[in-house]
Amino acid sequence: MNANNFVLGLVQMAMNEDVAANLKHGLTLAAEAAKQGAQVICLPELFASHYFCQREDVNCFDLAEPLDGPTAQSCGAFAAQHGVALLAPFFERRAPGVYHNSVLVFDADGRCLGVYRKMHIPDDPAYYEKFYFTPGDLGFKSFSTRFGVIAPLICWDQWYPEAARLATLNGAVALVYPTAIGWHPHEKEQYGERQYDAWLTAQRGHAVANGVYVAAANRVGFERCEVQAGIEFWGASFVADPQGVVIARASHDKEETLIAEVDVARLETVRRNWPFLRDRRIDAYSAITRRFLDEGTAS
Amino acid sequence: MNANNFVLGLVQMAMNEDVAANLKHGLTLAAEAAKQGAQVICLPELFASHYFCQREDVNCFDLAEPLDGPTAQSCGAFAAQHGVALLAPFFERRAPGVYHNSVLVFDADGRCLGVYRKMHIPDDPAYYEKFYFTPGDLGFKSFSTRFGVIAPLICWDQWYPEAARLATLNGAVALVYPTAIGWHPHEKEQYGERQYDAWLTAQRGHAVANGVYVAAANRVGFERCEVQAGIEFWGASFVADPQGVVIARASHDKEETLIAEVDVARLETVRRNWPFLRDRRIDAYSAITRRFLDEGTAS
Repeated sequence: MNANNFVLGLVQMAMNEDVAANLKHGLTLAAEAAKQGAQVICLPELFASHYFCQREDVNCFDLAEPLDGPTAQSCGAFAAQHGVALLAPFFERRAPGVYHNSVLVFDADGRCLGVYRKMHIPDDPAYYEKFYFTPGDLGFKSFSTRFGVIAPLICWDQWYPEAARLATLNGAVALVYPTAIGWHPHEKEQYGERQYDAWLTAQRGHAVANGVYVAAANRVGFERCEVQAGIEFWGASFVADPQGVVIARASHDKEETLIAEVDVARLETVRRNWPFLRDRRIDAYSAITRRFLDEGTAS
Repeated sequence: MNANNFVLGLVQMAMNEDVAANLKHGLTLAAEAAKQGAQVICLPELFASHYFCQREDVNCFDLAEPLDGPTAQSCGAFAAQHGVALLAPFFERRAPGVYHNSVLVFDADGRCLGVYRKMHIPDDPAYYEKFYFTPGDLGFKSFSTRFGVIAPLICWDQWYPEAARLATLNGAVALVYPTAIGWHPHEKEQYGERQYDAWLTAQRGHAVANGVYVAAANRVGFERCEVQAGIEFWGASFVADPQGVVIARASHDKEETLIAEVDVARLETVRRNWPFLRDRRIDAYSAITRRFLDEGTAS
């Protein structure tokens, strides 16, 4: 395990209709983050396109790319050129009828360390991901970059304590979530604040429970859709420390690069003082693999 | 599953050296909660005594009681008299050398529905619980009271997402944590706020991730100890709704009864709109039962 501190950089960006332009723009912002000292940089979920999952349209599968497609090639070259590790989310075409919501991890020499395929797939009004994405089959993974061990997870994974726990047990010092989450225009006024707060709280909770850094890179801006009311992506990319303290946070509505240090001594101090991993009851957790415990209440 | 709303009542209290007085005082406050409409009432962890775990002293085992001891008898009678369900934490003597940190659940007719034995046992400076308490062997349980299905958990369990998840899968609509947590005097000024905030955040995170009500009943007041600097118990008993919104919260320093409604329609609405339980990857969680994944990073 690499035990040095490193600097995380999160790209918060708005997308347009032009895939090549998004790719270029994302890497321009990533270059700004690198210039600010970032060593491990994360782009938002599916950053090469609008969030096409607002509708179910078979033509959108044309946006998918193979593991060595244009996004992979550009991002690998970028990582090598800037000497940074890069988390590059993309729409993966694995086979006809088998598509994933994935993220490639490049090390600072441009080598691809591997891919994470989104494990938890949502399906809510205007987030029709189950139509597009086959659930990931690679499990929860961590990757040892030149700078430190990170675990990529993606968006809906943010709500699952199991994902955060398994990534931590895999040795990650930072969980990094490329994200695409926002408000429905008709819900924002009444429910927006509590929705955003629940999202932040759940992830800060993962940081506390696991003694790990947690980072999310979200998109911003309003994306229209002909068959939906559109989504206002809420930005607010952030980094929380192993005690759940938010040490960096972006705005709700602007493109930004967010920089924060991962301090491995701080992580170790927190885990020594709050030794939650020591006291887990691994003899009593096996029912976590059950859907629901219908035999119901003990009494 | 009982699908009616019900009213939770939490007792936040300070303890003294007199066990009989604590028991009487706790039930006096519980009676106030019942008068305010509470139907399911929870007392703080080990409410019959000072938090004796500040030191390791074999004489403290004299405080322990059998399952049908004075606390059980008084609490069962109280539940029947007031027609309320009661969570009665106590120091359980099971056999010589086998003691637990437990909570009895009484239904509104005074019948004991069962016992929960604290599963996660801490051991930190001034919280020497591993000396006193054998880890629970009954797993994570829920109990169907006359008013609704609740799951008792205890204090250190608050930091474990696995406990919250399993209690939820057992059908609980509210996770209820009798608690004894506070500040070390020498840490409070520098770290107190973030420690308290992490505690609240982790539990609000459980509420969000599981779509469940979460309640904690803590003690208040400063308890001196001849071999330690003492603990300032931080109170702040609270109830969070299934979206993590804090709907009731007590002070840091006063005895109080806290009242909040568990709204089963609200719980169902939250779970319909944020269907996290639907998308769990039960095929991919089995390593949760591992201590650490030393084979390390995939790449």
